[in-house]
Amino acid sequence: MAREVTVSIDAMGGDAGPGIVVAALVRSLERQPGTLFLLHGDEAVLAPLLAKSPKLKTRVTLRHAPERVTMADKPSQIVRRGQNTSMWRAIECVKKGEADVAVSAGNTGALMAMSLLQLRTIEGISRPAIASIWPTMKGRTVVLDVGANVTATAEQLVDFAVMGEAFAHAVLNLERPIVGLLNVGSEEMKGNDAVKGAAQILRTSKLPIAFHGFVEGNDITEGLVDVVVTDGFTGNIALKTAEGAAKLVARYLSLALRRSLLGMIGAFFARGALNALRRNLDPRASAGGIFLGLNGVVVKAHGGTDAIGFAGALDMAINMAQADINARITRDRSIIDPVLEQAVLT
Amino acid sequence: MAREVTVSIDAMGGDAGPGIVVAALVRSLERQPGTLFLLHGDEAVLAPLLAKSPKLKTRVTLRHAPERVTMADKPSQIVRRGQNTSMWRAIECVKKGEADVAVSAGNTGALMAMSLLQLRTIEGISRPAIASIWPTMKGRTVVLDVGANVTATAEQLVDFAVMGEAFAHAVLNLERPIVGLLNVGSEEMKGNDAVKGAAQILRTSKLPIAFHGFVEGNDITEGLVDVVVTDGFTGNIALKTAEGAAKLVARYLSLALRRSLLGMIGAFFARGALNALRRNLDPRASAGGIFLGLNGVVVKAHGGTDAIGFAGALDMAINMAQADINARITRDRSIIDPVLEQAVLT
Repeated sequence: MAREVTVSIDAMGGDAGPGIVVAALVRSLERQPGTLFLLHGDEAVLAPLLAKSPKLKTRVTLRHAPERVTMADKPSQIVRRGQNTSMWRAIECVKKGEADVAVSAGNTGALMAMSLLQLRTIEGISRPAIASIWPTMKGRTVVLDVGANVTATAEQLVDFAVMGEAFAHAVLNLERPIVGLLNVGSEEMKGNDAVKGAAQILRTSKLPIAFHGFVEGNDITEGLVDVVVTDGFTGNIALKTAEGAAKLVARYLSLALRRSLLGMIGAFFARGALNALRRNLDPRASAGGIFLGLNGVVVKAHGGTDAIGFAGALDMAINMAQADINARITRDRSIIDPVLEQAVLT
Repeated sequence: MAREVTVSIDAMGGDAGPGIVVAALVRSLERQPGTLFLLHGDEAVLAPLLAKSPKLKTRVTLRHAPERVTMADKPSQIVRRGQNTSMWRAIECVKKGEADVAVSAGNTGALMAMSLLQLRTIEGISRPAIASIWPTMKGRTVVLDVGANVTATAEQLVDFAVMGEAFAHAVLNLERPIVGLLNVGSEEMKGNDAVKGAAQILRTSKLPIAFHGFVEGNDITEGLVDVVVTDGFTGNIALKTAEGAAKLVARYLSLALRRSLLGMIGAFFARGALNALRRNLDPRASAGGIFLGLNGVVVKAHGGTDAIGFAGALDMAINMAQADINARITRDRSIIDPVLEQAVLT
């Protein structure tokens, strides 16, 4: 049986406000009735919302936080003076052991800065990463980093490989996830120094990771590997470019169908199928970003999410808490250490 | 009236072989009857193909080349011993002034290495770039570099901005193309040192370029700007990831329509619209990659292209030859020089 999990939530993040967060709690509890929630935010706003859902009474504890992080706040500044925000408090409960995992739909940069400051990275991991789950031709693929860092050394890319593999093992339930390094070609000689260095470490180390080698951009959605490793600059741009391309195709489809009477008739008959396509492409269907490499689990829901999307992020958080992926990361990281030292020496 | 252009063609590149190249010549001549072609490749193969199309007789000159570049050839090696290949000879005609532009569907790395060695970069431009044209919500956007270099300094990104702007002006017929720098966020403080440095130069220089600032991955297909500047590592991955995402959506659509009887009926009525969508997404519809920054124009057709795609690359090449974009690049580059020197000194 899955163990009882406590989720600490920043109720004031996201574009849609706390209403969708409370609605998401109701949804999530229907699926995982054993969960406990600590809800951080403005009591005057949250108490009336909670009062409308009596089912939540025994499962949700309201914790007043007088301030909130806005999308305009600069991470470097808010991290220093944001101790009274709902976001800080949500993470603080994970740090203190009161909760297993924190969830927020707020400012990504601020959430990462506050998480890093309070939870610190796992021993041996120099930088955290943000993982995202992509739909593919074959199922799902984990891509990381999609934005925690704008650069990554060879060693940091190897850390991301370890973290992504542990995540895919625990959350996608893959016994032995296959890991690829994102590059401009699949041949060994291609790429910049960081990816070539990381590939060499992954090939020569005794890490218990199934390393495929290099993969290209189109291999992500092909589902060629289970985990795609890249730096946060490239990963963030790849993620947003893919979302843009998918949106463009959907738009072309819509325009093409509207252009003729037969197209409109076809769209009428196929409306069920087209709605299914729309659901498949909805970014709210994914859980947002998962912060890996910290002493504690933090999940970032999409800023523009609704109750369905936020409930998906809660499900992901509960999954993560039950899986305890950090033990696997720590184990792998201890294996890689001697290899890295050797690489640095030579 | 458009002036007569001579196009030098590597007939032995591409997966489909010289048959599609000759078929593309026929198509291209119908659209641009004044064009002259120099066709490089194996005479024993090409002569019989040309004999079948008498219309080509007065417009095409066959130039025998005993060897060819294969996809397996490493650029660094073939560039040294490849002087007898059809690819080398095609570029050589541009160098010698016998042709205005070269076109090949062969090995991209080899084509870039041979072009760089024979044509050299424009005075002041340190590295060439490969530009590609993307369909967007509003029309078309030029993205560069998509693979000539795996890294780029701030100064090189500025060069790419100058080259992309000149290209968009000449080929997309935009009086004052708007240029954006691809980044992980639109705020000034975001990004790595190269993009931040390039943004500073573009903001402070007297360059006659309409600089928008930073753009994100999804802004490319939104058509927010006319030219998107990035390094070849990120650009190549963004391009291939977008192609993969578009393919995935098309696949979802196909699966969704097949899942129900109503979906199939709908697809039957909408088949005209769906075929139009398919054509819109066909990578052959784009011209492939355009090499910028060299003393001469080289166009790379897609390796997997057919006669329609290769004819598109020929059209692009003829356009480029008529536009003379290098004059604009040289002018802009002479303006940027003092700014760059100042940036280096401070």
